[in-house]
Amino acid sequence: MNLIVDVGNSFVKLAVFSKTILKHKQTIECDALFENVKLLVKRFKSIKQGIISSVGTLNNEDISEINEFVRLLILNSETRLPFKNEYKTPRTLGVDRIALVSAAVRLYPNKDVLVIDAGTCITYDFINSRNEYLGGAISPGLRTRYKSLNNLTANLPLLETEQPKDIIGVSTKESMHAGVIFGALNEIDGMIDSYKLKYPDLTVILTGGDANFLSKQLKNSIFANSNFLLEGLNYILQYNSNE
Amino acid sequence: MNLIVDVGNSFVKLAVFSKTILKHKQTIECDALFENVKLLVKRFKSIKQGIISSVGTLNNEDISEINEFVRLLILNSETRLPFKNEYKTPRTLGVDRIALVSAAVRLYPNKDVLVIDAGTCITYDFINSRNEYLGGAISPGLRTRYKSLNNLTANLPLLETEQPKDIIGVSTKESMHAGVIFGALNEIDGMIDSYKLKYPDLTVILTGGDANFLSKQLKNSIFANSNFLLEGLNYILQYNSNE
Repeated sequence: MNLIVDVGNSFVKLAVFSKTILKHKQTIECDALFENVKLLVKRFKSIKQGIISSVGTLNNEDISEINEFVRLLILNSETRLPFKNEYKTPRTLGVDRIALVSAAVRLYPNKDVLVIDAGTCITYDFINSRNEYLGGAISPGLRTRYKSLNNLTANLPLLETEQPKDIIGVSTKESMHAGVIFGALNEIDGMIDSYKLKYPDLTVILTGGDANFLSKQLKNSIFANSNFLLEGLNYILQYNSNE
Repeated sequence: MNLIVDVGNSFVKLAVFSKTILKHKQTIECDALFENVKLLVKRFKSIKQGIISSVGTLNNEDISEINEFVRLLILNSETRLPFKNEYKTPRTLGVDRIALVSAAVRLYPNKDVLVIDAGTCITYDFINSRNEYLGGAISPGLRTRYKSLNNLTANLPLLETEQPKDIIGVSTKESMHAGVIFGALNEIDGMIDSYKLKYPDLTVILTGGDANFLSKQLKNSIFANSNFLLEGLNYILQYNSNE
């Protein structure tokens, strides 16, 4: 069994896979990492190896503590990857994006795939049918947009994500919901349209915390998969332990 | 002659109008307001009245000091406006948006007009052909998007606005430019398309600091006007002083 640790910008996700099957998944606060891993290792006794991916700086203490229980692969720009990385700055390619691309090549081999991850950021990652990762785009996620409206202006409140009632917001709150939500939807649909002009047989995956909220409202048809990043990490671990 | 003071989220704009003709325009730092007004009043001796609009909290000292030279109208939710305000929360309607709508009814009377102001925020404001302001949307501006990517993530740098080379960003910086710029362009084009479904004869105005950068790349045809907000403030001042 494999332990998967995904340290994101806002939360940590823990998962357990038996080969390629997801057995367990939970989201925890960043400061509760070690104690929760300990509980998991107790509960799933056949966990033999793990992988950790962190978009921020990793706490070395946490890692060496976890390493006492589980042999841990730390995902970074040196890790051997199951795709050809054509990114010009591989050392600054986020490990979250590496994991998403790995999932794409495993689940949709020999296809042109655009992976859209809607979390703290909205990341777009494109891998072509020749297994080559070319790059993509990064824009602010829904919650980040709400936060920035509040942080960087004098008078706008901090709102939680909410479906706008109409394209014309009739109050300041409704205007903010319309701007953030319809803005992001138009952005995503427009991006997919642009990629489709170049790659007509494009497969589009939508994942991340806001995937369910957004998926029903997109004009383009997409596959929603909330475990895509975890599946990618599990694949990288398998890919590196098989040889 | 009229003095126009527009205190925005990032800068202050000062302008002088002779009736409806813009004679002078300058952008200054927020803390240099009073000294610059004093210079302007010396230079344009026929300035008799002024209007001040601020999206933040106004400094009372500044106002009373300026009032010694110029009779000053302070734009707020109580000010008499040249359009019918159907907004459900008129007290939280930003004075910048009030000014934009006022310019729309003066320059495009009896038309369905969408005013898009691309500054710290991107604001969308819709006024119909019956002179009724219905509301709109607010989303983060270009610079705000760049800032939020840096502020709210662990590893992304702070970048200046730059035209992306391609829809597929091949480095982390290019990915951020693609996400912010193509994201905003797709958002704006998508918003205009949605309004046009309901209002086929829509007139679209694009204004604000990023208007020139964005206007050439939009699919929809728009009128770019960098003085729209100032013209709106001047119109509100005339509208209130003529009676």
